[in-house]
Amino acid sequence: MGLQYQESFTMPFDLCDVKHDAKLPLLLAYCLTVSARQSNGLNRSDAYVLEHFNLIWIITDYEVNIKRLPVFNETITIKTEAVSYNKLFCYRQFNIYDQEGNELADILTFFALMNPETRKVSTIPEELVQPYESEFVKKMRRAFKPEALENPEEKTYHVRYFDIDMNGHVNNSKYLDWMYDSLGYDFLRHHNPVSLRLKYVKEVAPGGQITSSFVQDDLTTRHEIKSEGQVNAQAIIEWMRID
Amino acid sequence: MGLQYQESFTMPFDLCDVKHDAKLPLLLAYCLTVSARQSNGLNRSDAYVLEHFNLIWIITDYEVNIKRLPVFNETITIKTEAVSYNKLFCYRQFNIYDQEGNELADILTFFALMNPETRKVSTIPEELVQPYESEFVKKMRRAFKPEALENPEEKTYHVRYFDIDMNGHVNNSKYLDWMYDSLGYDFLRHHNPVSLRLKYVKEVAPGGQITSSFVQDDLTTRHEIKSEGQVNAQAIIEWMRID
Repeated sequence: MGLQYQESFTMPFDLCDVKHDAKLPLLLAYCLTVSARQSNGLNRSDAYVLEHFNLIWIITDYEVNIKRLPVFNETITIKTEAVSYNKLFCYRQFNIYDQEGNELADILTFFALMNPETRKVSTIPEELVQPYESEFVKKMRRAFKPEALENPEEKTYHVRYFDIDMNGHVNNSKYLDWMYDSLGYDFLRHHNPVSLRLKYVKEVAPGGQITSSFVQDDLTTRHEIKSEGQVNAQAIIEWMRID
Repeated sequence: MGLQYQESFTMPFDLCDVKHDAKLPLLLAYCLTVSARQSNGLNRSDAYVLEHFNLIWIITDYEVNIKRLPVFNETITIKTEAVSYNKLFCYRQFNIYDQEGNELADILTFFALMNPETRKVSTIPEELVQPYESEFVKKMRRAFKPEALENPEEKTYHVRYFDIDMNGHVNNSKYLDWMYDSLGYDFLRHHNPVSLRLKYVKEVAPGGQITSSFVQDDLTTRHEIKSEGQVNAQAIIEWMRID
């Protein structure tokens, strides 16, 4: 068990969709700002990690289970903890609760450390993660291993200027945004996500185009983001129908 | 002079661009959440206005002057007041200050009221605006009257699912997003906005495509958003070069 940290948050207009539900890509992005504040408080800000270790955090996988999406104006509590780590990955858990303490969603995030110049993944320095009081575990978690899509539907997207974040890369949340958007307004209007497995494979370079492909099998959609012939991200989403 | 209201705010990661500056469309959207909280406190929430008057607020014009954009992690103070109104418009001012009290930007917003079914503009009911203590003025402010663009450069955008907000319409901030994006990464990387005049003409319908056109004359760019042969929004932006 790692150190726990929590914040409350009232869902603003700009984080909600036409159904008044949280926009999932932005909710995931908001959770990262919560864990960033825990890190700042433990003297392990991104700036510190870069300066003292010449490393940056990257996310490789998301595992998300959703009982209900937070809705507009609802106050939620986001609890997070860096649960465990091994040689190459840190596993961080987020749990989202409503005002009555009912769990709305749980999110497991796989983090790795990368040298920003060589773009190579680094082993996790003990000294860097020590303040989080996470448990060291030898075993790697089984990550999501999707198969390539056969005969998918495809849609092409231009990478927009504001898709690029402060790190000069396409923001993590945009990949899921493109996956969602490929499904079309009518599908999204009448379905809510129940679970999501998302794997980041390779960063999309600024300025280019990407293809967002999907196949649908009843209430399951499988997704790929590709650019320049390479896979950038893959996901599987389970949905429930709503009216 | 109307009732003043203010909030402090620390610029989060997701509101900042690759230059570490505030993303202007999102900063303007954030200012609206500040004025919404003033309205809620005065018992004039959007829900109240809809229920008691069957009207919704729309923005018709922005006039923005920027000395310096707020930067990542900077704490700013946003002061706002509903300055004055006439038969058809309410004029709301926002002023943004840094921690030393230096003004970073001022924003004048023209609001009007619309019947959501007929889509017709309504006269401003005295009872609705009374709590803001704004001054009634007979005179209309001179609004921005742009000319049509000649031989503009054009770029086409698909309206994305998450461009649609809780009201079921393309969010106001997206128009400026499309205008910015048409200028390209290299221009935006090396220029910051000094002033903006933005006029909303007609809503973009969900699901379609829009064209974002611009002409550039040195450090001035003029913009049009069009869909289905109609102008949806127009703007003029003055820029300064940065390195």
